Amino acid sequence: MKHIKTKYEIFRQKAFLIIYGSNTVAGRLFDLILLGLILLSVILVMLDTVEGFNKKYHNILIVLEWIITICFTIEYILRIITIKKAKNYIFSFYGIIDLIAILPMYLSIFIVGSNVLTVIRALRLLRLFKILNHPQFSGQSVQLRESIIASRGKILVFMYFLIISCIVIGSVMYVVEGKESGFTSIPVAIYWCIVTLSTVGFGDITPITPLGQFIASIVMIMGYGIIAVPTGIVTAEIAKSEIKRQTKKAIPCGQCGTADHNIQAKFCYKCGHEFPEI
Amino acid sequence: MKHIKTKYEIFRQKAFLIIYGSNTVAGRLFDLILLGLILLSVILVMLDTVEGFNKKYHNILIVLEWIITICFTIEYILRIITIKKAKNYIFSFYGIIDLIAILPMYLSIFIVGSNVLTVIRALRLLRLFKILNHPQFSGQSVQLRESIIASRGKILVFMYFLIISCIVIGSVMYVVEGKESGFTSIPVAIYWCIVTLSTVGFGDITPITPLGQFIASIVMIMGYGIIAVPTGIVTAEIAKSEIKRQTKKAIPCGQCGTADHNIQAKFCYKCGHEFPEI
Amino acid sequence: MKHIKTKYEIFRQKAFLIIYGSNTVAGRLFDLILLGLILLSVILVMLDTVEGFNKKYHNILIVLEWIITICFTIEYILRIITIKKAKNYIFSFYGIIDLIAILPMYLSIFIVGSNVLTVIRALRLLRLFKILNHPQFSGQSVQLRESIIASRGKILVFMYFLIISCIVIGSVMYVVEGKESGFTSIPVAIYWCIVTLSTVGFGDITPITPLGQFIASIVMIMGYGIIAVPTGIVTAEIAKSEIKRQTKKAIPCGQCGTADHNIQAKFCYKCGHEFPEI
Amino acid sequence: MKHIKTKYEIFRQKAFLIIYGSNTVAGRLFDLILLGLILLSVILVMLDTVEGFNKKYHNILIVLEWIITICFTIEYILRIITIKKAKNYIFSFYGIIDLIAILPMYLSIFIVGSNVLTVIRALRLLRLFKILNHPQFSGQSVQLRESIIASRGKILVFMYFLIISCIVIGSVMYVVEGKESGFTSIPVAIYWCIVTLSTVGFGDITPITPLGQFIASIVMIMGYGIIAVPTGIVTAEIAKSEIKRQTKKAIPCGQCGTADHNIQAKFCYKCGHEFPEI
Repeated sequence: MKHIKTKYEIFRQKAFLIIYGSNTVAGRLFDLILLGLILLSVILVMLDTVEGFNKKYHNILIVLEWIITICFTIEYILRIITIKKAKNYIFSFYGIIDLIAILPMYLSIFIVGSNVLTVIRALRLLRLFKILNHPQFSGQSVQLRESIIASRGKILVFMYFLIISCIVIGSVMYVVEGKESGFTSIPVAIYWCIVTLSTVGFGDITPITPLGQFIASIVMIMGYGIIAVPTGIVTAEIAKSEIKRQTKKAIPCGQCGTADHNIQAKFCYKCGHEFPEI
Repeated sequence: MKHIKTKYEIFRQKAFLIIYGSNTVAGRLFDLILLGLILLSVILVMLDTVEGFNKKYHNILIVLEWIITICFTIEYILRIITIKKAKNYIFSFYGIIDLIAILPMYLSIFIVGSNVLTVIRALRLLRLFKILNHPQFSGQSVQLRESIIASRGKILVFMYFLIISCIVIGSVMYVVEGKESGFTSIPVAIYWCIVTLSTVGFGDITPITPLGQFIASIVMIMGYGIIAVPTGIVTAEIAKSEIKRQTKKAIPCGQCGTADHNIQAKFCYKCGHEFPEI
Repeated sequence: MKHIKTKYEIFRQKAFLIIYGSNTVAGRLFDLILLGLILLSVILVMLDTVEGFNKKYHNILIVLEWIITICFTIEYILRIITIKKAKNYIFSFYGIIDLIAILPMYLSIFIVGSNVLTVIRALRLLRLFKILNHPQFSGQSVQLRESIIASRGKILVFMYFLIISCIVIGSVMYVVEGKESGFTSIPVAIYWCIVTLSTVGFGDITPITPLGQFIASIVMIMGYGIIAVPTGIVTAEIAKSEIKRQTKKAIPCGQCGTADHNIQAKFCYKCGHEFPEI
Repeated sequence: MKHIKTKYEIFRQKAFLIIYGSNTVAGRLFDLILLGLILLSVILVMLDTVEGFNKKYHNILIVLEWIITICFTIEYILRIITIKKAKNYIFSFYGIIDLIAILPMYLSIFIVGSNVLTVIRALRLLRLFKILNHPQFSGQSVQLRESIIASRGKILVFMYFLIISCIVIGSVMYVVEGKESGFTSIPVAIYWCIVTLSTVGFGDITPITPLGQFIASIVMIMGYGIIAVPTGIVTAEIAKSEIKRQTKKAIPCGQCGTADHNIQAKFCYKCGHEFPEI
C-alpha cells in the first residue's frame, strides 16, 4: 500500500512541476499546448455563431468543443489533485476562471445554446502573462496595473460626478426632445448622454429640435474637458511611476546620502564620493 | 414659556447634530437613509418614464414619489429651523439644490408632467462626498477640483477659439454642402462641426459632396490636434499638483516651519536655517 | 487752412485713442459696442439661414445687416485714416479680416446669396483678446500658442505619416469592400479612414464584409495608439512650458549660481546665500 | 575593353551620387522630380477609381500610369546597378517598397484591376524624410519614433488585455442582444465592441434591448478610462525623452566627456572630475 502511495506521490510531484511550473521543458510545452487549446477553443465557439460556417461544420465543431472541454476538465482535476492546498487553487482568480471555462459546455446538455458562454475561456488567455514570465513584460504589466490602481481613487470620484451629470443632462434632454426624437424614457436619454459624453456617438438616437441640438453642443464641448480628466489622471500616475522606477534603481550615496543618482553613476554628483563596484 | 423654549432648544441642538453632523451614530444613519431615499426617488422618476412600467405601476410610483417628497420637505424645514443662521443654508449650494429637489412635485399639481423634473434630485447625490468625509476620497476630489480650477483660464481661452472656429467652419460647410445634405442652416452646420471636432460623430448629418468630404477630412485631422490641447492642459495641471503634494511631504524647516522645500535643499529658502544632515 | 488741418489732426489723434486704444473710458466703450455689433451681426447671418425665421423677418434682417455693414465700413475707413502708417494696419492680420468682413455684403448686390459669407465676421471676435488685455488671460493664450508652436514640428511629422497611412489603408479597404459597401472610390475610402482613425465614426460608410470589418478593427485598435501621439506631444510641451514659466521667474543665486529656486525663496537652497529684497 | 569599363564606372559613380545622394544640385533635383512623380502617380490611381473621372479620361490615365511605371522601373534598375552591394538596397525597407510599387502595374496585364494596388506607391512618400535631411525634422521624427518604440512593451500588454476584454464583452453582448439587433455572430459582436471601446461608434450596429444598452453604457464608461491608458503611456514616454534631451544639452565633463549629467551636478558621475564653478 505504501509502495503505491509513494509512486502516486512521485507522479503528483512530477505533474505539479509540469502543470504549475514553467521552468522545465515539459512544463513549457504543457503551457504552450494549453494556450493553443484555449485559443482554438475560443475560435471554435466564435465560428459556431457564424451562420454559414455553422450549417456546414456544426457537428465537427461540437465534437472538437467536447474534446477540448474534456481536456480542460482533466487539467482542472489534475490541478486540484497535484497541488498541496487545493483551496489555494480553487478559490484563486485563475481557479475560478478555469471552473467557469468548463461549466457552460456541461450545462449545454440541459440548456440548449448555453455553450456560447464557453467564450469566457478567453479569460484563460490571461495566463499568458504567467507563462511568459518574461521580466520586461511582467515589469510593464506590473507598472501599468500599479498606475491604474494608484489612480483608482480619482477615477472613482470622477465617475461618480460623471454618472450624476449624465442623469441630470439625460433628464433635461428627455424633457426637451421627447419621445418623437427617440428619447423614449429617461434611462434611454441617460444612455444617449453616456454615448455622447464618451465621444462614441453611435447616432442611433440624436437630438432633432434646435434646443436639443444646442444642449447637445454644450454637452459635447463639456465632453472635451471631461475626457481630458481621466487621461490626465492616468498620465500623471504613469509619469510618476516612471520616475519612481528610475529612482528606485539608484543606491543613495554612502557619504552624503543623496539619493537621486543617474543609474549609471559611478560617483556621487554632490560630494564626489566613489560608489563601490557591484 | 421659558421652559418650553429650552426644551425646543435642546431638540434643535439634537436635531442639528443628527441632520448636519455625521460623527454620531444617529447622524450617520440619517445620512445613509437620506442617500437611500434620494437614490430611490431618482430611480422612481426614471421608471415612471418607461412606457411598459408606467402603465402597470403608475399609481404606486406616484404615491411613493409623494411620500419621498413629503420626507424631503420635512427635512428641508428641519434644516432651516435647526441651523442658527438659516440664510447660510438657504442660499448655499446644497440649500438651493434641496429646494429645487422638492419644488417640481408640488408644481405637478398645477402643471401635468412637471414631476419629471424631480430628477434634479440626482444632484443631491453630491452629498455623498460630504457624508463620506473620508480623508483619502475628499483629498482626491479636492486635488481634482483644484487641477480643474487651475486649468480654467487656459480651457476658457481654448473654448473661445474653438467656438469661433466652429462658427467659421460650420458656415463654410453650409455654403459647400447646402440643404440637400442635411446642412439646413448655419446653426445646424455649427452643430455638425461641434459633433465632428469633439470626435462624437453621430452621423445624422454627413457631407456628401467631394469638396465637403475634403473639408471634413481637414477638420477631423485638425480635431486630432485640438483634442490634444485640453488633455494636455489638464494633465500638466494634475502632474504639477501631484509634484506639489509630494514636495509638501518633505520635512518642514525646524526654525520657521515652511514645508514646501525642494527635496535636495540644504537650507530653508525662507529663513536660511541649515537643515541637519540626514 | 492750417487751422483746419490742426483741427483735423486733433480729431485724428482723439479718434485713434478711441479706436485703437482701450485705456480710456471712450476707448473701452467703443470696443464693447464693436464686440456687440460683431456678435449681433454673426447671429443675424445665422438666423437668416434658418428657414422659418428667414421667411418671417427677411426684410428686417437684411436692413439690420446693411446697417451693421455700413458701421463696419466707416470703422474700417476710420482705422485707415487715423493710424499713421496705414499699411501697418491694412496688411496686418486684423486689417485683412476687417476687410473680408465687409466685402461679402457689397458682393451680395451682384451675386445673390454671397451675404452668407459675412459669417467670416466671427473671426473679428478674436479681437476680444486684444480688448481684454487682461494679464492672466493673455498670459494663458500666449502659453497655449507657444506650446502649440513648439510642438508644430512633431505634429507635422506625425500628420505626414498619418496621411500616408490613410492613403494606404483607404486603398486596401477600397479593394476589400468595393462599391457595394459605399467605398465608391479611393478618395472616399481615404475619407472613411480619416473618419475612423480620428475616432469620429460617422457611420455613413461602414465595412460590411468580414475581412473589411477585421481590417477596420485593426485600424481602430491602431487608432488608439495613434490618438495618443499628438496628445502626448502637446502635453509634454505644455508641461515643459509650465516648468519653464516657473523657473523663469527665479533669479539665479549670486553666490553659487544655482538657478532653479522656488519662486518665493529668500535664501539659496544650496549655499544659504540671502537673496536681495526686490 | 578596359576603357569602356572605366567609362561605365564613371557613369555609375555619377549616377550613384545623383540617385542616392542629396547634396549635389542634380541629386536634389532628382529627389524633387521623384517625389513629384510619386505624388502624381498616387493621385492618378485615386482619380482612376472615381466613376465620372474614369469614364472621361480612362485612356489618358492608363498611359500616364504606364509612363510613370516605366520611369520607376528604370530608377529601380539604376538603383541596383549603381550601388556597390546590390543586396543592401534590394532587401532594405525602401528597396522592398520600390519593388512593390512597380509590380502591380505589370501584374495588371494579366489580372484586370490589380493596377489599383499601385497606390502602395504612397509608401514611397516616406522618402521625404530621407530627402529633407533637415536636422530639426529628422530630430523630431527620431524622437517620436524612439518614444513609440520605448512605449511598445506597455502598449502590447495593454492591447492584449484589450483584445481579451473585447472577446468577453462581445460574447456577452451577442448573448444579450442576439441576431435581431445586428449582433449576428460573436466576431461581429467583437467588431462592435472594438468600435465602441475605441470611441469610434459607427452606429451600424447598436444595442436595442435595455440590458444591452446598460452593458454598453458600462463598456463606454470603462472606455473612458481605457483610452486614457495608451495616451498616458505615450505622453510619459515623450515627456521623459524631452527631459533626456534637455539634460544632454548640459556641458560635457572636461575629463571624460560624459554628457548626460544632472543639471545640478558638481562632479562628473563617471570619473569624479569636479566641474569648474560657473
